[in-house]
Amino acid sequence: MTERSVTHATFTIERSYDSPPAKVFKAFADPAIKRRWFVEGEGWEVEEFTADFKVGGQERSRFRFRGGTPICNDTAYHDIVPNERIIFAYTMTIGENRISASLATVEFKPEGRGTMLLFTEQGAFLDGLDQVEGRKGGWGELLDALGRSLQS
Amino acid sequence: MTERSVTHATFTIERSYDSPPAKVFKAFADPAIKRRWFVEGEGWEVEEFTADFKVGGQERSRFRFRGGTPICNDTAYHDIVPNERIIFAYTMTIGENRISASLATVEFKPEGRGTMLLFTEQGAFLDGLDQVEGRKGGWGELLDALGRSLQS
Repeated sequence: MTERSVTHATFTIERSYDSPPAKVFKAFADPAIKRRWFVEGEGWEVEEFTADFKVGGQERSRFRFRGGTPICNDTAYHDIVPNERIIFAYTMTIGENRISASLATVEFKPEGRGTMLLFTEQGAFLDGLDQVEGRKGGWGELLDALGRSLQS
Repeated sequence: MTERSVTHATFTIERSYDSPPAKVFKAFADPAIKRRWFVEGEGWEVEEFTADFKVGGQERSRFRFRGGTPICNDTAYHDIVPNERIIFAYTMTIGENRISASLATVEFKPEGRGTMLLFTEQGAFLDGLDQVEGRKGGWGELLDALGRSLQS
């Protein structure tokens, strides 16, 4: 029987990109672009990626790393201000175990001709199965992958 | 044009109830019971209350206070452990303006023959239209109404 626990934690990440806010926003809004930086990568097998980018819309990705246990991300969009802000809630599940539920806010601010992106995650990490440090590291890598995607 | 801003804040509320965890949990899980303490009350006109209490399910309530501007609560359930834990995300909208998006965790812990309920909200308060103090006060009143509902 699982010992239940919840650890609440908040973290923020900032990234500066040379691209304007409309282009960075589009990398979240356009499913084909998002798929490239968000779920594809060497060693990752994407089993599912469906996205409905609108308030009330859902997004689901399911993937494995080198044949390992399936990992699911279930996202629901709660607030969208074009080119300025996206707020979504998402859970992460590994195999049968839900390891977290989080609220994420992405803010896009003009910075010269580019964009300062501010990512804020307010997370509930569940049953000792996940930790905030790893989550922050994971999002840091994703936002770096987004940066490479914007340059390609 | 709306000046956009996001204020992130977390608060917790504790309440002790004489009823066992299964009964307190049911007051969230059963739509007929939840409606009584969550949206009904003197002066409040309930225009809509629909609830689908399951992971991935949605709940929507729409109400007015004494004929005022319609207020909407849109909730999505992200994690449910029967009699132990509920995690949901919700937005509040007044008229056309979304004023907040939040992640809420409700934990039900046995306390003698009763229950200690721990409510944690991790909120994003939007565009200067809402503040954490008022939200905490609102949930405090709701959890008091829940307590009265358990005794009736």
